[in-house]
Amino acid sequence: MNREKIVKGFRLRLLLIVFSMPTFFLGNNALAQRQNQYIRIANIVIDTAQLESYRAALKEHAEAAVGKEPGVLTLYAVYDKDTPAHVTVFEIYASKEAYNSHIQSPHFLKYKSTVKDMIKSLVLTDVVPIALETKQNH
Amino acid sequence: MNREKIVKGFRLRLLLIVFSMPTFFLGNNALAQRQNQYIRIANIVIDTAQLESYRAALKEHAEAAVGKEPGVLTLYAVYDKDTPAHVTVFEIYASKEAYNSHIQSPHFLKYKSTVKDMIKSLVLTDVVPIALETKQNH
Repeated sequence: MNREKIVKGFRLRLLLIVFSMPTFFLGNNALAQRQNQYIRIANIVIDTAQLESYRAALKEHAEAAVGKEPGVLTLYAVYDKDTPAHVTVFEIYASKEAYNSHIQSPHFLKYKSTVKDMIKSLVLTDVVPIALETKQNH
Repeated sequence: MNREKIVKGFRLRLLLIVFSMPTFFLGNNALAQRQNQYIRIANIVIDTAQLESYRAALKEHAEAAVGKEPGVLTLYAVYDKDTPAHVTVFEIYASKEAYNSHIQSPHFLKYKSTVKDMIKSLVLTDVVPIALETKQNH
């Protein structure tokens, strides 16, 4: 009876370990992936006469890049409410390699050629994450 | 036989309409929810001597806000690689009301009180989305 209890306890612990293994490895894997990410903020000033065309080109580019490229994780593009010529893009790539591949993609080259006479200044800032908190499916 | 074909065709179209209805309403609902979002960028300059403490407080705050408040959708907090005292937070709230509720939450008030002597300047800019593209589960 006592031996049976011990065996049962052992089996339970073994089951717990086996079932928690995928979570453990997935968790570690997700962490490693996050640490490899390349994050950047682009601050862009647009020619005021061409705001609409610029926004259309940037929207098309962001949709193509995140939709088609596995390594382009996030492109959040916005303009200042009070200064619509000021555009900010918050960019997350899976890695520096993913970014290097991104800037050779046909949609990126098309975007660059479309907007070349619309941009007055462009400042790119590499950044380091403090917290990247977001709800899924919003 | 001909009448049977017509009936079958009608049934098929009716089925297609019925099955596409949830997608249609969900799509419209998601669009309406997105249009209501309140998006902002915070540019913060931190006292260089207190960078580590500030980052810890901001990380704790971002995790609590996105984890506990249904209306706080995204808080992406980063610092400039070359100028670590420059912090940027990209903030997405479900609505202006969600933001107003957020700034009365215990974790926000705790954060504000913790960091009040760490912040040298704070500029808040309301922004309008051009594209908010992100992959799920990254």
